[in-house]
Amino acid sequence: MATVVNTTTMASSRMPNGSPGYKAKPSAPEKAPKYSHVFAVHASRRTSCLTSGTPNPPSFIGFRNLMILMLIVSNLRLIIENFRKYGVLICLSCHDYSRQDLLYGLLLYVEVPCHLLVAYYIELIAARQANDAVAQVKRASESDSEIAKKQRSFQLTWRLIALAHGANATLNLAIASWAVYYKIHHPGIGTMCELHAIIIWLKSCSYAFTNRDLRLALLSTSSAAAIPELYKSCPYPRNITIKNLAYFWWAPTLSYQPVYPRTDCIRWPFVFKRLGEIFGLVIVIWVASAQYAAPLLQNSLDMISTLDVISIIERVLKLSTISLFCWLAGFYALFHSFLNALAEVMMFGDREFYGDWWNAPSTRQYWSTWNKPVYHFMRRHVHAPLVGRGIHPALSQILVFVFSGVLHELLVGIPTHNIIGVAFFGMVIQVPLILATDPLLKFKGVTGKVAGNMVFWISFCILGQPLAALLYFFAWQAKYGSVGKDSMSQTVVSQ
Amino acid sequence: MATVVNTTTMASSRMPNGSPGYKAKPSAPEKAPKYSHVFAVHASRRTSCLTSGTPNPPSFIGFRNLMILMLIVSNLRLIIENFRKYGVLICLSCHDYSRQDLLYGLLLYVEVPCHLLVAYYIELIAARQANDAVAQVKRASESDSEIAKKQRSFQLTWRLIALAHGANATLNLAIASWAVYYKIHHPGIGTMCELHAIIIWLKSCSYAFTNRDLRLALLSTSSAAAIPELYKSCPYPRNITIKNLAYFWWAPTLSYQPVYPRTDCIRWPFVFKRLGEIFGLVIVIWVASAQYAAPLLQNSLDMISTLDVISIIERVLKLSTISLFCWLAGFYALFHSFLNALAEVMMFGDREFYGDWWNAPSTRQYWSTWNKPVYHFMRRHVHAPLVGRGIHPALSQILVFVFSGVLHELLVGIPTHNIIGVAFFGMVIQVPLILATDPLLKFKGVTGKVAGNMVFWISFCILGQPLAALLYFFAWQAKYGSVGKDSMSQTVVSQ
Repeated sequence: MATVVNTTTMASSRMPNGSPGYKAKPSAPEKAPKYSHVFAVHASRRTSCLTSGTPNPPSFIGFRNLMILMLIVSNLRLIIENFRKYGVLICLSCHDYSRQDLLYGLLLYVEVPCHLLVAYYIELIAARQANDAVAQVKRASESDSEIAKKQRSFQLTWRLIALAHGANATLNLAIASWAVYYKIHHPGIGTMCELHAIIIWLKSCSYAFTNRDLRLALLSTSSAAAIPELYKSCPYPRNITIKNLAYFWWAPTLSYQPVYPRTDCIRWPFVFKRLGEIFGLVIVIWVASAQYAAPLLQNSLDMISTLDVISIIERVLKLSTISLFCWLAGFYALFHSFLNALAEVMMFGDREFYGDWWNAPSTRQYWSTWNKPVYHFMRRHVHAPLVGRGIHPALSQILVFVFSGVLHELLVGIPTHNIIGVAFFGMVIQVPLILATDPLLKFKGVTGKVAGNMVFWISFCILGQPLAALLYFFAWQAKYGSVGKDSMSQTVVSQ
Repeated sequence: MATVVNTTTMASSRMPNGSPGYKAKPSAPEKAPKYSHVFAVHASRRTSCLTSGTPNPPSFIGFRNLMILMLIVSNLRLIIENFRKYGVLICLSCHDYSRQDLLYGLLLYVEVPCHLLVAYYIELIAARQANDAVAQVKRASESDSEIAKKQRSFQLTWRLIALAHGANATLNLAIASWAVYYKIHHPGIGTMCELHAIIIWLKSCSYAFTNRDLRLALLSTSSAAAIPELYKSCPYPRNITIKNLAYFWWAPTLSYQPVYPRTDCIRWPFVFKRLGEIFGLVIVIWVASAQYAAPLLQNSLDMISTLDVISIIERVLKLSTISLFCWLAGFYALFHSFLNALAEVMMFGDREFYGDWWNAPSTRQYWSTWNKPVYHFMRRHVHAPLVGRGIHPALSQILVFVFSGVLHELLVGIPTHNIIGVAFFGMVIQVPLILATDPLLKFKGVTGKVAGNMVFWISFCILGQPLAALLYFFAWQAKYGSVGKDSMSQTVVSQ
């Protein structure tokens, strides 16, 4: 029955134009058909729908579906190929970290936040000193000279406080980096520790800078206007409490504010969904890297050592699929699932942890959208102040990328025990890339945007990341040989 | 300078919300910055843009760009891999067709159209007979019984004429198929000859059927209304001329009409553009098949013979990319470039040789849009008449696919000297596929359409075609062994 309906509807819908020979058929089957052969199929002038300048150009949505299928198919093929080559490489039992790695990891996990506590005590002293200053100003006859004197004396104390903060923060990074570089062999554990240390470092810097400006605003009556409305509910000295600091410690941001926009309640189902996502994605990433990345990296070693360029390109291109996959999964797990879950538990209101960086029409836009917490930190505590001090914005941007490059090198170079500067270079190279892709935005239409977006994907995900991974893996191998094999792709050896 | 502009614009555009600390900077660099550290980065509640039900969901156009890049990259990789494995397989000098193949090819090229000429002479006799009938009707007293008698006598003559046409058309196919199967070894030349014969066969069938109905309409005064307006300029007997037939012979259509919509002039630049496209695409297809398909088919032989299923799937998936590429390129070259060029030269007005089949939401729609000339022939001369004679539309559709399956088997089975019925089965299997994908159209929203489109791509391009290619190649190898190698992938051997 279904087909009958379809066929008749089709019969009527497909007709190029109405004709008695065709139209009459379903109704009067014995008369009309005699002439069905004369039906004018070609009744009017028409153009092929792919001809340029055709009145109604067709959609190409079907080709998008085809692309999705081809990607699935080609990777399905690689999965089969990989399976037939290596079998199952994933093994649950074979962990390869030493007890020392775990011990130092735990120690750092406890030690690192203490520096935030120290920062709090420093601020406590600074707050007291500021309160006294304000009180004196109130008592004294309010002559401008008086206030100026107070501010000068404040400036001096601030230098001491800044010194203390600097020492505290630097110590944090120094201790963590030393422990990771010399005591923690496993790159995974090392990276987590180093990341934790850097986050706390950034948080304590932001804490110090922000409170310093709040204090400054408190003393100079004129500048109270500069304080955002939001903070009014918790004016300066009152925000220097353990509770306030503890909230900042766990809040999913790197920029300290006395007050944050908050949500009214914790939606536990939301939290558990996010946790489920994290769990699933971590497993997927682990499988992808153990089953596909590890052997790929392994059998690309000799090519690098022999500098067989074509082979290296071939390896990089093959690696790019997996690294891209892991990158996207990792991004979602960390920036969407994890930070949202954390924000929900902390009732943190502002969930804009990333923008739609995947549409970035220029490298600049990518760097300003993919990682908002760091982006906000850099703008608020590095770029803006530098520009404020009269440094050329372009130069200050370069400085931001250099600074960020140093952090990246710390984050990758130290846990892999190879400070080869690839991560640093990878960040610094972004500056010329930005200069190269900015002009594309000026093009009319979408071509410029698409081109810029393509350049970003190629430079960052298809060449940049896999190449960096390959280089650090090679450096690791050069340094540790088979140990490295155990450590980064033990699964291969375990076959 | 460019960067300055960009940075400032960025500074203003990036700001989450206006703040004196930030806004003032470029203007008053010595005062404002003092408080830049207090700027409220987190000023309001916001959701991550990937959260479901977010007020302004982001576009994912960037991921489309990424898909395109990944397809390019993964195939670029395969190209490198292929090059490192086989080197350059393309060779211009090594042609592998015998002089006999060419000779019989040329003979068929001359012989086949003669059957169209024969059809013309048959029609000429029929036309004379019809004219006499009309004249007699005119002379005689116009009693219905008289006309009925004439029509009966006409019916008899028509049977003879039908017999003549049938014999002529069948002879055409028989001779061509015999020559191709027994005398032309090269599958390429064979396919071209067989295709030519089938086209001429369809044309002569359409010529016979159409003129038969025109004649019938001429005799029965009542049914003159059934004749399309378009034909009025050349009423029935006057269209039986060599000139009119010659035009139909070369016109890019399989459905005969005494009159076609025509264009006013030949745009030669358009013609040469299309010819350029054909030239380029043919080379591309040739390279793809010689360099990529041939070795793939070669080293998948043992897997088929040992029936190693996983390997066969792997091969089919790998083959699908190339077969799909060749299919798309071939479709464009034949249905867009060639038919448009031909139509332009013939000043043929109706260029709708295909619809947007790539968006086909169901298998049914694909078969009714991808090849309009054959689709029109089937509707006009098979489906409509059958339905007209009271056959259930669904059954008539099945018959159409069975008929089309026979033609496909002729087209593939005979040139490859292996009538293994795969092409036939491939066409007949479309009927259940249509029944399976039709319901998808009933779903609300796009999901159904997308699903149907995916089913079409998978069944047709990703599994169907490469599997068929593999099977015919295997059958060829089983029959000719090394000769087959020479013939279908001589280039591999020639290394």
